[in-house]
Amino acid sequence: MSFNTTALTTTPGTEATPLDQDELRRINAYWRAANYLSVGQIYLFDNPLLKEPLDSKHIKPRLLGHWGTTPGLNFLYAHLNRVIKKNDLEMIFITGPGHGGPALVANTYLEGTYTELYPNIEQNLAGIKRLFKQFSFPGGIPSHVAPETPGSIHEGGELGYALSHAYGAAFDNPNLIVACVIGDGEAETGPLATSWHSNKFLNPISDGVVLPILHLNGYKIANPTVLARIDRDELEQLLRGYGHTPYFVEGEDPETMHQQMAETMDLVTEEIRRIKQHAIKNDDTTRPRWPMIVLKTPKGWTCPRNVDGRQVEDSWRSHQVPMGGMHENPDHVALLESWMKSYRPEELFDEQGRLIDEIAELAPRGNFRMGANPHANGGQLLKSLHLPDFRDYAVEVSHPGHVKAEATRVQGKFIRDVMKLNLDSKNFRVFSPDENASNRWGDVFDVTDRAFVGEILPGDDHLSPNGRVMEMLSEHQCQGWLEGYLLTGRHGFFNCYEAFIHIIDSMFNQHAKWLKVCEDIPWRRPIASLNYLLSSHVWRQDHNGFSHQDPGFIDHVVNKKSEIIRVYLPPDANCLLSVTDHCLRSRNDVNVIVAGKQPSQQWLTMDQAIKHCTAGASIWEWASNDRGSEPDVVMACCGDVPTLETLAAVDILRRELPELKIRVVNIVDLMKLQTPSEHPHGLSDKDFDLMFTKDKPIIFAFHGYPWLIHRLAYRRSNHQNLHVRGYKEEGTTTTPFDMVVLNDMDRFHLVTDVIDRVPHLGTQNAYVKQAMRDKLIEHKQYICEYGQDMPEIRDWVWSGGKQQISE
Amino acid sequence: MSFNTTALTTTPGTEATPLDQDELRRINAYWRAANYLSVGQIYLFDNPLLKEPLDSKHIKPRLLGHWGTTPGLNFLYAHLNRVIKKNDLEMIFITGPGHGGPALVANTYLEGTYTELYPNIEQNLAGIKRLFKQFSFPGGIPSHVAPETPGSIHEGGELGYALSHAYGAAFDNPNLIVACVIGDGEAETGPLATSWHSNKFLNPISDGVVLPILHLNGYKIANPTVLARIDRDELEQLLRGYGHTPYFVEGEDPETMHQQMAETMDLVTEEIRRIKQHAIKNDDTTRPRWPMIVLKTPKGWTCPRNVDGRQVEDSWRSHQVPMGGMHENPDHVALLESWMKSYRPEELFDEQGRLIDEIAELAPRGNFRMGANPHANGGQLLKSLHLPDFRDYAVEVSHPGHVKAEATRVQGKFIRDVMKLNLDSKNFRVFSPDENASNRWGDVFDVTDRAFVGEILPGDDHLSPNGRVMEMLSEHQCQGWLEGYLLTGRHGFFNCYEAFIHIIDSMFNQHAKWLKVCEDIPWRRPIASLNYLLSSHVWRQDHNGFSHQDPGFIDHVVNKKSEIIRVYLPPDANCLLSVTDHCLRSRNDVNVIVAGKQPSQQWLTMDQAIKHCTAGASIWEWASNDRGSEPDVVMACCGDVPTLETLAAVDILRRELPELKIRVVNIVDLMKLQTPSEHPHGLSDKDFDLMFTKDKPIIFAFHGYPWLIHRLAYRRSNHQNLHVRGYKEEGTTTTPFDMVVLNDMDRFHLVTDVIDRVPHLGTQNAYVKQAMRDKLIEHKQYICEYGQDMPEIRDWVWSGGKQQISE
Ligand SMILES: Cc1ncc(C[n+]2csc(CCOP(=O)(O)OP(=O)(O)O)c2C)c(N)n1
Ligand SMILES: Cc1ncc(C[n+]2csc(CCOP(=O)(O)OP(=O)(O)O)c2C)c(N)n1
Ligand SMILES: [Mg+2]
Ligand SMILES: [Mg+2]
Repeated sequence: MSFNTTALTTTPGTEATPLDQDELRRINAYWRAANYLSVGQIYLFDNPLLKEPLDSKHIKPRLLGHWGTTPGLNFLYAHLNRVIKKNDLEMIFITGPGHGGPALVANTYLEGTYTELYPNIEQNLAGIKRLFKQFSFPGGIPSHVAPETPGSIHEGGELGYALSHAYGAAFDNPNLIVACVIGDGEAETGPLATSWHSNKFLNPISDGVVLPILHLNGYKIANPTVLARIDRDELEQLLRGYGHTPYFVEGEDPETMHQQMAETMDLVTEEIRRIKQHAIKNDDTTRPRWPMIVLKTPKGWTCPRNVDGRQVEDSWRSHQVPMGGMHENPDHVALLESWMKSYRPEELFDEQGRLIDEIAELAPRGNFRMGANPHANGGQLLKSLHLPDFRDYAVEVSHPGHVKAEATRVQGKFIRDVMKLNLDSKNFRVFSPDENASNRWGDVFDVTDRAFVGEILPGDDHLSPNGRVMEMLSEHQCQGWLEGYLLTGRHGFFNCYEAFIHIIDSMFNQHAKWLKVCEDIPWRRPIASLNYLLSSHVWRQDHNGFSHQDPGFIDHVVNKKSEIIRVYLPPDANCLLSVTDHCLRSRNDVNVIVAGKQPSQQWLTMDQAIKHCTAGASIWEWASNDRGSEPDVVMACCGDVPTLETLAAVDILRRELPELKIRVVNIVDLMKLQTPSEHPHGLSDKDFDLMFTKDKPIIFAFHGYPWLIHRLAYRRSNHQNLHVRGYKEEGTTTTPFDMVVLNDMDRFHLVTDVIDRVPHLGTQNAYVKQAMRDKLIEHKQYICEYGQDMPEIRDWVWSGGKQQISE
Repeated sequence: MSFNTTALTTTPGTEATPLDQDELRRINAYWRAANYLSVGQIYLFDNPLLKEPLDSKHIKPRLLGHWGTTPGLNFLYAHLNRVIKKNDLEMIFITGPGHGGPALVANTYLEGTYTELYPNIEQNLAGIKRLFKQFSFPGGIPSHVAPETPGSIHEGGELGYALSHAYGAAFDNPNLIVACVIGDGEAETGPLATSWHSNKFLNPISDGVVLPILHLNGYKIANPTVLARIDRDELEQLLRGYGHTPYFVEGEDPETMHQQMAETMDLVTEEIRRIKQHAIKNDDTTRPRWPMIVLKTPKGWTCPRNVDGRQVEDSWRSHQVPMGGMHENPDHVALLESWMKSYRPEELFDEQGRLIDEIAELAPRGNFRMGANPHANGGQLLKSLHLPDFRDYAVEVSHPGHVKAEATRVQGKFIRDVMKLNLDSKNFRVFSPDENASNRWGDVFDVTDRAFVGEILPGDDHLSPNGRVMEMLSEHQCQGWLEGYLLTGRHGFFNCYEAFIHIIDSMFNQHAKWLKVCEDIPWRRPIASLNYLLSSHVWRQDHNGFSHQDPGFIDHVVNKKSEIIRVYLPPDANCLLSVTDHCLRSRNDVNVIVAGKQPSQQWLTMDQAIKHCTAGASIWEWASNDRGSEPDVVMACCGDVPTLETLAAVDILRRELPELKIRVVNIVDLMKLQTPSEHPHGLSDKDFDLMFTKDKPIIFAFHGYPWLIHRLAYRRSNHQNLHVRGYKEEGTTTTPFDMVVLNDMDRFHLVTDVIDRVPHLGTQNAYVKQAMRDKLIEHKQYICEYGQDMPEIRDWVWSGGKQQISE
């Protein structure tokens, strides 16, 4: 067993000695203090400074947490503190291996931010005791670098997003350095592996700096890591291939390591300064080779080398709790005591349990402390966007359905001007995996470019280092960058193909969980919402096919806390504008907007659209004929294509069955369907019953999977009469109308549904039903011959039942 | 405008000329033929060989598809054919940019496999006409390299998984070379970026070879690609850092390019041969630096250079259809005609429309054709696993709940022996992001190791180049490898933390869609199911917390076609064994098993478990007391923790309200809840009503999000009495029992639910209800003080209502 921390003898032959003996002693003491507090959090319940002999009764009954990564994090934090203080750097710390929670809690406690935010965790013995007890303890704090942790914008529970978050934080923060620790295990994840290339999107003048620190401690949970087991040459090539100049700090002797790290930090800081200065002075946005650090240390550094004869330090066995069985095994208690005492707490904390001054002085002051940097509590810095009046972008709609527009293109003009109005504030960006143009937001390029800090050729389309549109073919990067951007107090939009947004399902989960927890943390200030535009949606992925058809992101989203999530399916461009404006003003939500990009009928004037979207769901009186009586059937629709098919069905019904009383209801805000007890937007039962009736058949055409509507509305009184059509996993590369036919959501099926479900419709309707069947057969024959939809489908216009069905 | 294909003059100064003039001419002709057929598919409706002047009426009304990537794919296919034929190689082709569907259709048509599988696409004029028409056409074939495409195991719709699939195919296929084209856009995705490291898991003796071909055509949809805009040096460093030796083939002059590519293919084939031979001869599994190819060509190579004055070839504008407006713009028709004629179809096809012999001869024969390689229709090669008798692993259960076991550890022993029995067949592997041991499958290491082809150190735990357990910290790799392995006719299991399986939501989507489509393709033979074990589940992520709690993968899965998806929640180890056995025998499904790893009560004997799992849902008579009468309440449970809480609640109820008639129903097979019209496993309405009653309250404790049960069961007659408890996004690092309490699913809440919902329970039950409330308060106080659950919770045993509640 060796306790490296205690071995502070001078190593002969050490080359670099940027620290004098006193500095060395003090920085090592700081590290020891952080390590001590980390071990204490994992193990101790009482006797925090080991003033009495350690007894099993002082040890927590359940040992939960991760030690392995922690000493490395503590080491880095101490050295970053040093260069922050030395150079007045503005820095935040991103902990890729977020399971190293104890380290960040310990360090923010040592620097004082913890106590400022949580006054009952005082800077004294009682405070340390509470600090220890609360960790991974009921009523206490989580094991990870969670929202509860000061200075964190990255929980690091699900691994892989550290660098993306770091770059998101750095964009448009030219004075910020984001130190980002990447676990060597984390480096194996896909999102992390591609996030290295983020440096091709970072403007060396107007953005901040990301300092990646690869924490090569050799292991993940039970395995070595890939990057620790390739040749140094190969690793260096890889990192240079990523565009970095790597600096290696390697070893386990603390003194040598402190000197090496201090030297490296100085070098790296200097290089960063030089790069920034050069870029600014020469107005040169050529991509520099940014420095990065590789820290190679034993995993679990400074814990017992062996426990019960098995290696723990420098092995995967140190990943979680280096030794358990504390209540069964007195040897382990003794070992823990000597381990903790190896940090010599008596030299670190005074009688009252306060960190002694000469150590405490090493921490930066005020907002220079990484735990207090306002960027890490982005809501503090958040400024509202300057928004143009969305009504100015309205599509003129004289008659419902008589004008066509591409909804997302109209929205794109609004977004263009949002971009324009906020160019000076530099706090709005758009993110997309190369789908902005495809999804029809091309107008935004009138006012800004796509960001790119690589070679730019003459034929390139709006590419520049100053662009504010972020397009990398990685949904993970778009999501990660945007999260980092939002969490540091800015605004943004993610523009994505609907089907492939599932790629970031799990990232959405983590962000939604983060927001949910933040709502209960008073010092976390609200941040801008995470906004999604999902277009090229399931019904209109014309060039592609089945692999590009999946409307299930909504299903995924609505599983998260209702306070956080919002889902909008505007039926036309004016509604889309109104919804977009709303989303850009909202805070702490995740807003999902689904809207088509293809030319399609416009239904509502801007005035109507505003009312409709504000209400979230309404009867479309102009399409209904039940006013003054009870409806026979409610035709409900949600989504642009379902709205079209519903209105086309109503058109047929009103012509063919003129006595039928039809009520058309459109839903923009999906969460209206839930009860108010389930979602803050939910319609009251009374309003719901009024709108949908208590006993009439509801034929509901839905954009997504039909069962989602049942899952949302199952508590409603009229649920048993709810009949939903939607996407049921049928599709291929075919015509737009055939897509709805394949899923039984077309106008002809909807008419048939009405005939089948409205009671007491006379047998003469057999003729109408048969006509519908025949239309479907005609359709199939036509498209297989001509490859496009029948003219009567393509050219259909809403007539309120006045038009003849073409023969 | 330049048509590179026609410019077949000898370039002076070309160094390498492995092809003599005749070979050069013929391989170029082959490429021209493939290109011609590709353009034809995208554009033509009629006049396939341009025997008449091209008219707009010959052109499809809707132009759907992607040209940009296609000529490069055609070029590669031709050159791979050449080395296959020359060296009798066994090779398959993976098309990363799967939107290049026309290329693979064209090539499999040229080599003859297409016509063999689709006899109506004959090798004549009528066949070519149908080949053209069917592409991206209603009633025809999809635009991508879909299951319909011969030789494909990779659709390439959602980009990013090409290399993972390639490696999955190569594992345990020592004679197979998997040529894998990676789009330079695709290379930006996370999954692709990390999949390069798969070579650290490939055994050079017993596995096959993956030949990555980076298709550096410079652009993705509307943007240049990152890898095309970094220095050649940097790119080379990156690829070497990934462990490859890159060979660059760059240019646009066809002749030079053919010579270069032929030379490179020869070099690469020779290097592969040399590496394999060395490894085998010297029994040396040291990781070699595998060769790879970088093909740098203009995007859209050989299409019109400019259209309407704007550059198309060698620009992002060639990505989809290089020019549209064919029916409005006669110039475009003329341009298309001259473009297509530039391939000189009259030299390629004879009068009858057959490919002329001297070109056709270039294709390999029989199963050497990449479209006919049986590995790409894995079901052809599939052999059933040798399975031990799962009953031999049974946990002895004398009394329900009186013995504890770790379910997944028991399952792990079974898996160990499955591994053992199939070691010789080399057709079973286990995949996990470093969570096998954590999820308690450690016993598998008794018979095999973790695969690793990097440096191995003494302390490493069961690591070897021959291991059959694949552990990389990338859920994407695990999923991609496993898919590739299954699609080529082998078996496997994915062992994952429940929460993080969402990382591969979108990959699961694509695989489920693939399987769904395959069910309708007669020549696609059934493959082994994709099996998931999800453990360290939402209720017991003790070391972590909120970020690790998400049971929503099931919700995601059940959106896919019911023929494909199966979800099992075994309540104990014996049930888990029975379910596991079943899954390993099934075909063409996706099986999701959710099971805990913590020591917990065992309920059923093996005999009971088999009956229960075969039925999927049953009344647990030993826990119920309603036999011979009507139940007052149905206590339903699904999942291990919900089962525990339900039984504990029943225990209390039977003691405190002895007259209450309780029926306990347990569900293993979640899809039983749906009707048979919705899922093949669905219980009939009659059986459902019998089991759950038509009118009694059902208190349902569910493992996942409670609303999923409503979504599945909303059609059932007793749905309005269904009251579901489950995970509702409340959690942190706390005690196991507190997790259920936070989500109102604990025994005390369940008892309260019964009291609240069963009508006519007397007011004396106010006392019981209050006792429950008090228990919850006691619980909170206890855990906040002691950090673990109350002894009465930890030590609870099922007594069938006979035990006193401890005070
Ligand atoms: C995406 C994801 N998969 C799996 C896990 C489970 N997990 C937690 S920690 C860990 C190992 C991390 O290794 P590394 O990044 O090297 O961190 P360190 O060695 O510093 O602890 C794993 C696999 C996770 N948190 N996230
Ligand atoms: C994960 C994912 N995101 C987005 C898309 C949309 N998309 C289709 S093709 C394409 C560009 C592909 O570029 P590249 O890989 O270079 O292929 P190539 O240039 O050969 O066409 C994109 C972004 C997709 N198919 N998959
Ligand atoms: Mg590590
Ligand atoms: Mg490309």
